[in-house]
Amino acid sequence: MRGMRRIGFFSIILLISVAIHADAQAPAGLSPETEACIACHQSVTPGIVADWSRSRMGRTSPREALSKPPMNRRMSADKAPLPETVVGCAECHMLNPDTHRDTFEHQGFRVHTVVTPGDCAVCHPVERDQFDHNLMSRAYGNLMENPVYLSLVTAINGSMTLTDRQLRHVTPDDMTNADACLRCHGTKLTVEEKPVTRDTAMGEMDFPVIQGWPNRGSGRLNPDDTRGNCAACHSRHRFSIEMARKPDTCSECHKGPDVPAYKVYDVSKHGNIYRSLSVSDGWDFNAVPWTVGEDFAAPTCASCHVSMIASPEGEILAERTHRMNDRLAWRIFGLPYAHPHPKSPDTTFIRNKDGLALPTAFDGTPAATFLISKDEMAKRNRIMKGVCGACHSTGWTDGHFRRFEQTIETTNANTLAATQILMRGWEEGIIPGPAAGDSPFNDPLERKWVEQWLFFANSTRYASAMMGADYGVFANGRWYMSKNAHEMLESLKIKAGLPPEGE
Amino acid sequence: MRGMRRIGFFSIILLISVAIHADAQAPAGLSPETEACIACHQSVTPGIVADWSRSRMGRTSPREALSKPPMNRRMSADKAPLPETVVGCAECHMLNPDTHRDTFEHQGFRVHTVVTPGDCAVCHPVERDQFDHNLMSRAYGNLMENPVYLSLVTAINGSMTLTDRQLRHVTPDDMTNADACLRCHGTKLTVEEKPVTRDTAMGEMDFPVIQGWPNRGSGRLNPDDTRGNCAACHSRHRFSIEMARKPDTCSECHKGPDVPAYKVYDVSKHGNIYRSLSVSDGWDFNAVPWTVGEDFAAPTCASCHVSMIASPEGEILAERTHRMNDRLAWRIFGLPYAHPHPKSPDTTFIRNKDGLALPTAFDGTPAATFLISKDEMAKRNRIMKGVCGACHSTGWTDGHFRRFEQTIETTNANTLAATQILMRGWEEGIIPGPAAGDSPFNDPLERKWVEQWLFFANSTRYASAMMGADYGVFANGRWYMSKNAHEMLESLKIKAGLPPEGE
Amino acid sequence: MRGMRRIGFFSIILLISVAIHADAQAPAGLSPETEACIACHQSVTPGIVADWSRSRMGRTSPREALSKPPMNRRMSADKAPLPETVVGCAECHMLNPDTHRDTFEHQGFRVHTVVTPGDCAVCHPVERDQFDHNLMSRAYGNLMENPVYLSLVTAINGSMTLTDRQLRHVTPDDMTNADACLRCHGTKLTVEEKPVTRDTAMGEMDFPVIQGWPNRGSGRLNPDDTRGNCAACHSRHRFSIEMARKPDTCSECHKGPDVPAYKVYDVSKHGNIYRSLSVSDGWDFNAVPWTVGEDFAAPTCASCHVSMIASPEGEILAERTHRMNDRLAWRIFGLPYAHPHPKSPDTTFIRNKDGLALPTAFDGTPAATFLISKDEMAKRNRIMKGVCGACHSTGWTDGHFRRFEQTIETTNANTLAATQILMRGWEEGIIPGPAAGDSPFNDPLERKWVEQWLFFANSTRYASAMMGADYGVFANGRWYMSKNAHEMLESLKIKAGLPPEGE
Repeated sequence: MRGMRRIGFFSIILLISVAIHADAQAPAGLSPETEACIACHQSVTPGIVADWSRSRMGRTSPREALSKPPMNRRMSADKAPLPETVVGCAECHMLNPDTHRDTFEHQGFRVHTVVTPGDCAVCHPVERDQFDHNLMSRAYGNLMENPVYLSLVTAINGSMTLTDRQLRHVTPDDMTNADACLRCHGTKLTVEEKPVTRDTAMGEMDFPVIQGWPNRGSGRLNPDDTRGNCAACHSRHRFSIEMARKPDTCSECHKGPDVPAYKVYDVSKHGNIYRSLSVSDGWDFNAVPWTVGEDFAAPTCASCHVSMIASPEGEILAERTHRMNDRLAWRIFGLPYAHPHPKSPDTTFIRNKDGLALPTAFDGTPAATFLISKDEMAKRNRIMKGVCGACHSTGWTDGHFRRFEQTIETTNANTLAATQILMRGWEEGIIPGPAAGDSPFNDPLERKWVEQWLFFANSTRYASAMMGADYGVFANGRWYMSKNAHEMLESLKIKAGLPPEGE
Repeated sequence: MRGMRRIGFFSIILLISVAIHADAQAPAGLSPETEACIACHQSVTPGIVADWSRSRMGRTSPREALSKPPMNRRMSADKAPLPETVVGCAECHMLNPDTHRDTFEHQGFRVHTVVTPGDCAVCHPVERDQFDHNLMSRAYGNLMENPVYLSLVTAINGSMTLTDRQLRHVTPDDMTNADACLRCHGTKLTVEEKPVTRDTAMGEMDFPVIQGWPNRGSGRLNPDDTRGNCAACHSRHRFSIEMARKPDTCSECHKGPDVPAYKVYDVSKHGNIYRSLSVSDGWDFNAVPWTVGEDFAAPTCASCHVSMIASPEGEILAERTHRMNDRLAWRIFGLPYAHPHPKSPDTTFIRNKDGLALPTAFDGTPAATFLISKDEMAKRNRIMKGVCGACHSTGWTDGHFRRFEQTIETTNANTLAATQILMRGWEEGIIPGPAAGDSPFNDPLERKWVEQWLFFANSTRYASAMMGADYGVFANGRWYMSKNAHEMLESLKIKAGLPPEGE
Repeated sequence: MRGMRRIGFFSIILLISVAIHADAQAPAGLSPETEACIACHQSVTPGIVADWSRSRMGRTSPREALSKPPMNRRMSADKAPLPETVVGCAECHMLNPDTHRDTFEHQGFRVHTVVTPGDCAVCHPVERDQFDHNLMSRAYGNLMENPVYLSLVTAINGSMTLTDRQLRHVTPDDMTNADACLRCHGTKLTVEEKPVTRDTAMGEMDFPVIQGWPNRGSGRLNPDDTRGNCAACHSRHRFSIEMARKPDTCSECHKGPDVPAYKVYDVSKHGNIYRSLSVSDGWDFNAVPWTVGEDFAAPTCASCHVSMIASPEGEILAERTHRMNDRLAWRIFGLPYAHPHPKSPDTTFIRNKDGLALPTAFDGTPAATFLISKDEMAKRNRIMKGVCGACHSTGWTDGHFRRFEQTIETTNANTLAATQILMRGWEEGIIPGPAAGDSPFNDPLERKWVEQWLFFANSTRYASAMMGADYGVFANGRWYMSKNAHEMLESLKIKAGLPPEGE
């Protein structure tokens, strides 16, 4: 019934659309292809057409974008295929049709569903290249092609069945992985051979079926063989810098107990200033470069990790980067220990001294060959401190970093204590471990060990890095790190048949 | 001392008030009764008078409300008792005095404290009727008149005392229940026989004493024998659509680990767009109907579940409903398994195959007779997809729903695995279960089982439904579902005196 | 390289600065000392100079501040050293140089790093005195000079090493404590004897090295022997009332599971109104006094606990206080039981009946001599209810408080049940307790006991106090209180070698 009404409606729109074309009175700057898209899609998916029409891309031609001084440009290519044309639907969804396995015939056009970094790179090659060197662009492979992590994925996502005395996990199906880890890590998008035919308001149409779709993960494997997803942060169809600079964007993936960066930020002084004053003081989240003291008064995630930051006098305090560890010496996301950042964004070929694909060994030894050098760490710290220095004295910043590195040391020590408990269980044959060919992630004791580094040590380090108080103590911090280790020891004693004597 | 000052102050106000009446120069549209209320209450409770004076009701007469085209109306009755009178204090608090057991004599008027859906229905009968068919309007009875849930309430709220070897729970008192579950579910308001006399600034006055008051729960039992509470979402005394449409309103009851809808929304792409752009883009939360792309660019809770949504071309994409499962096929709030929505908002008479008042049996079998049919489920999915379709292609939406249904299946499977562990404990007499006449909610193992479905399976499903990443994995998601089942099995072995051998 | 560019840049600034001085064309109201600071620091730390320039202090001289009617003043002194001078860098950082051990020679001036309540008190003596009587100003000593709490600090922050059968905690180092508990409680700032020489853009300079810096805790011990930190809430360098009134400020320290005040507020009706309407309704967070119904429509933390609240008619509903328990009868932060507030902000000398420095004994007996009387409690309740009364009727408020006191009683009862389980373990020698000279905080069973009162009873009481629903039930509320006690009993049985028979 509703479908019927729609068809009538669409016919009118089509007529108008045809009329516009016939008259050649196109709104300035839109390509005819984009006009054709809009003619229907303003009825079919009005929300995204409206989004796009509010976006900067929807109002700006490459020539206009390039008319700005280099420092104020949002575009890093020095030319674009259609310099006078506003960037509309067709300019992205019809780009590079031959590289896209998801390209399909649609109302006379060759259209693809998934716009990829390969498409964005036509105008933003520098940013795409930076992001391609970012760990986040490899988030799919770094997880799914590492046998250690893959056994963790199975222990989490694989459905359980109870046998007589054990819980068995099946290998998780693709949809479950897509619904879990891969929502942030990105799915592998594959186009099925056979399209689906749908009865639409415009009559029957064929559409490609894409396994792994929808997905907004940062390390997505795309149908044009590119990696990553610019829209993870620059959300469709506004593609805005404003949104990418606001911490809510990062919270989509960085709020869980494993990586509580947003939570910590939110209770930090920086987060408080952002929440309390950014609206009433009218901060400008769109300015390029982003000028501290003029456009904003406290950092968001992007200020410290991504954006080009300028002083009011026009000095660049930090260059823009989409390789988000450019300003980070330490990878505080412990695997299982905090360690210097990996040299390469592809971490699958890292081997620790025990031959496992982990950046540190169970005893804490870093896989140093694969990690950045002390010099590189010093350089990255210097860049980060340049951002801090916009508001903080050297004494303040040095004190902060000294304390932060002490916390890296003590959280690693507390991870070691927990690991020693676990290894005793493995060595004494109380629970089967990797040496016995078993997953290190299935026994309850092993799972407590995972929480020691993945939740509690991580939380404590994030809290230290951004001064978010309770995440270093009672909110998944040191309280839990310490409680958990004591419980692990007690559990090991019970499993070993020893009396769990009091402490 | 301060009281003394007040009395002086009030006397002046009273004189002014009397003067206004004498002069008959009432502000246009206020009833004399409302004026009398305001004359004192702008001093006694100035905050709510100010709230009301900013509200649409405080500035609009029914005649004005009805002068709009039907689609733009906020009022569903086609007439009201006082068509020319702005809706003020008296128009609600003096309505239907004879049906209200909380009606009392107050300064010459018959006033009641608790404004109820019965009062609101004078102007909003359609919305009240919809809400009366909403599960939420039955939240009191559905909890407190179901013996299964009631034993859970006791296991949670009943104060504990330690005997020699056991913790005993007393039956929780009414104030504790009101402070706990019933804050959201709603209390039963009963008027005590004897009023209380208070020494007020206006002299001694009598007021009714209402047990269960205050309360803002959605399923409140009111002193006029109506159910529910419109102010749960349309908070007093602004009664605004804006507030009901903002997700913070829903967060009052939907943020806990049992029902983390808000938390998931907050880290979803939708939540991020709302947080990042709704203020800077100036979304209009008051427009009726609510036009996607014009008034808002990403859904809040209300967009998908309640509001009348229109396209910019004026097409209605979804009709307004206050029966909030009108667009929901599945009840993902597992009891203990996710299941098709109940047919009736009153769930107390549901019986599963084992005779328990639960929509599914312990082995997962749905109490199908009491649940909606596959056809009805398909219809509701179609309505919901009509909202999705404002921004998303059919391929996107279908992919999302397919994945979501897979997650319903796997979370139900993981609930089953945990239930089988528990049932083995019951069957082997390791812990006393329902067959032994015992509550299924008191033993530590039973409590872990509750968390399996109530926290972890629920969280995973909410995360799937709204694409909130980590709530499906580490933030109370699959990680916990899997860890908890393994711990349950280990605990059962320890209780059974078996060696808790490693896995 | 970047340094080089900077030096050139700074030289120009210096020349301009010198020129301004030579010309005596200083911007009206700035002291020459402040001008000298700004001349360099607008390049060196532009962010904080910009912050300050937007602040009220950066635009207002004491004379102007004092020209307002007393009720509208933000300054409580009746004179200031430089009545005609805007309060700039020098006016704070060069105040009282002889009392500051962190004073150092800096470009010809005697400057100190840490601005303290002693400095702020020059213009704000009343607020400083109030805050000095606030528990929060003693947060360092109340924690670190109480042997009971200190053993908890060690059990949490002390790094662990695994010996044969035990986990040992070293005494936590100062940096770890500063990174953990003391981030909120405040550090002890001590100035090292030897300054550090840094190679700055202006050449080599000496700076004091301050142990414990940076820190923003409320009970900081400062280098001028004052206690506390006004910038904990009035963040540098805006020092705004607006920010202190917004709940995000309180969330910096009051969001963890031990003290979830902010979390509860956030899901309360009050928090919802704040989040949903404060921006769109344009609440004024800077007005003094703060007028309910005009400036704001629902309370934030400050409305109830700190701010001077007025009615639209100008009546003062509550006086301003920085002793934040002035309106609080009960200290619901249980130690281990909720109790009447301590008389003195210094709680180190409290002794319970067992001689421990705790406000209640393990059996719940309050250390009554050290706690406020019933009369004082009644007085404080009266003040608080005066704030509630701005919007709520007496019946509403009385009902709320009655229920709240019931919850204090039941949560104390549930803490007692858990304590009895623990004490049985101590008495029967199953785990070593205080009587055996052991810490009451290290064994896993003891740690579960800590969570009973510190997390679950606290959360339940905060939820009751502010009507934040799920924090009293499933979100660390009664569900956990009850589950935890049952698990404690089961764990005790296992430790005692008894069968953990089912319940």
